[in-house]
Amino acid sequence: MRKIHVIGIGAGDPEQLTLQAVRALRDTDVFFVLDKGEAKADLVQLRREMLAAHVPEGAYRVVEARDPERDRAAGGEAYSPAVGDWRSARAGIYERLIAEELGADGTGAFLVWGDPALYDSTLGILQEVLDRGAVAFEYDVVPGISSVSALVARHRTGLNRVARPVQITTGRRLAEAFPEDADDVVVMLDARQAFRHYADQDIDIYWGAYLGTPDEILVSGPLAEAAPRIERLRAEARARKGWIMDTYLLRRNPGDA
Amino acid sequence: MRKIHVIGIGAGDPEQLTLQAVRALRDTDVFFVLDKGEAKADLVQLRREMLAAHVPEGAYRVVEARDPERDRAAGGEAYSPAVGDWRSARAGIYERLIAEELGADGTGAFLVWGDPALYDSTLGILQEVLDRGAVAFEYDVVPGISSVSALVARHRTGLNRVARPVQITTGRRLAEAFPEDADDVVVMLDARQAFRHYADQDIDIYWGAYLGTPDEILVSGPLAEAAPRIERLRAEARARKGWIMDTYLLRRNPGDA
Repeated sequence: MRKIHVIGIGAGDPEQLTLQAVRALRDTDVFFVLDKGEAKADLVQLRREMLAAHVPEGAYRVVEARDPERDRAAGGEAYSPAVGDWRSARAGIYERLIAEELGADGTGAFLVWGDPALYDSTLGILQEVLDRGAVAFEYDVVPGISSVSALVARHRTGLNRVARPVQITTGRRLAEAFPEDADDVVVMLDARQAFRHYADQDIDIYWGAYLGTPDEILVSGPLAEAAPRIERLRAEARARKGWIMDTYLLRRNPGDA
Repeated sequence: MRKIHVIGIGAGDPEQLTLQAVRALRDTDVFFVLDKGEAKADLVQLRREMLAAHVPEGAYRVVEARDPERDRAAGGEAYSPAVGDWRSARAGIYERLIAEELGADGTGAFLVWGDPALYDSTLGILQEVLDRGAVAFEYDVVPGISSVSALVARHRTGLNRVARPVQITTGRRLAEAFPEDADDVVVMLDARQAFRHYADQDIDIYWGAYLGTPDEILVSGPLAEAAPRIERLRAEARARKGWIMDTYLLRRNPGDA
């Protein structure tokens, strides 16, 4: 029976790997690296360095494939999607990777930045591949340090205040409305800096980009003051590196609505 | 200058330690172990085993203290609180631990189950100790695998659905109301099984106790069917072990209110 590990590898700092993740890396024959089609040579390199640091050379293979999600214009590469529904396209790619690159008793792995449980599609796609029925495998999940945990650790603050909730949401949703029943809100996948909509409220922000890497940037403070600074730093960093991964916690103070 | 590491040590599986956490353990002279006053000899033992596995014998000391929060009737032990405000009592204990047990250039550590960012008081108390001004120290935070991440990894599901939010909240709050604007809700600190209030709704539950330990119990399924089973298993396990640590994800299906 084929086996698949879905391994959370932390938010960027190679030291955030867990012992369980290292064990899973060493148990793996073939690593499937999904290239998101962005200018993330740094991230691909970081993953290769993790493997080199923890797994004996020659004990594994790396198979790269093009993830259709982020690069719809791509074409011609092995495992790139044809046309049609993108989710099915992804499932088709994963299905072929597993069927063609993994021996009948082989062990493969997908390396996921952060925690596979947060805004990552790998688990959903693997379940879809199983549902199709063309290829059978077992799989397990190794939890990872999410960018959310990494963010607040670097800011040395908690996610929630005493006995109160925290909501994790997307930039798109935050742009629509501030959550009704949570004053502590973590925002991921925000390309549009939705925090700007709330700069007139009594809110503190804890923002971080490239968490756990040498390029890490941290900003915190009252949103009205911090927002322009974050916008500037974010634009500069993005221009310099060609990509940015950032996340932030908004902490609304009681009494404000 | 004194230094303090606040180290997230994962949800119960010693393999959930990160490489960063192991490094911080090895950098520590004195570990402060806060005994919650409950029947958690297993958990104290598990922490001692982690230290024994990763730090050379003789390279560290363990200082145990009584945390006033959970055992208000305790008295007489070193570092147990006098009377009055419990938060101040905790800050007072931490202050004395750091001042009396740690040399002027010593490094201490607090080991926190899960992630120090989620429903843990250590960071808030350390900040209060600094604010009092009686003892100075630097501190950093090592993020850990939370019980939330461990839970969904074992169930091989995500925390959020595609592009949707997730809320992390307490049993007390869930008993008052189901969150307005999140259909995926993780519940912690629930001694009263608040999920029972929602067993008539179209909700799936992913529940786990003693996550990552040999005693782990997992139950998932439609809430109406799973709730009685969880109640029974929970009561049995609690009676058998004398304590229980559990958490769960509720996933409300669209169309239901």
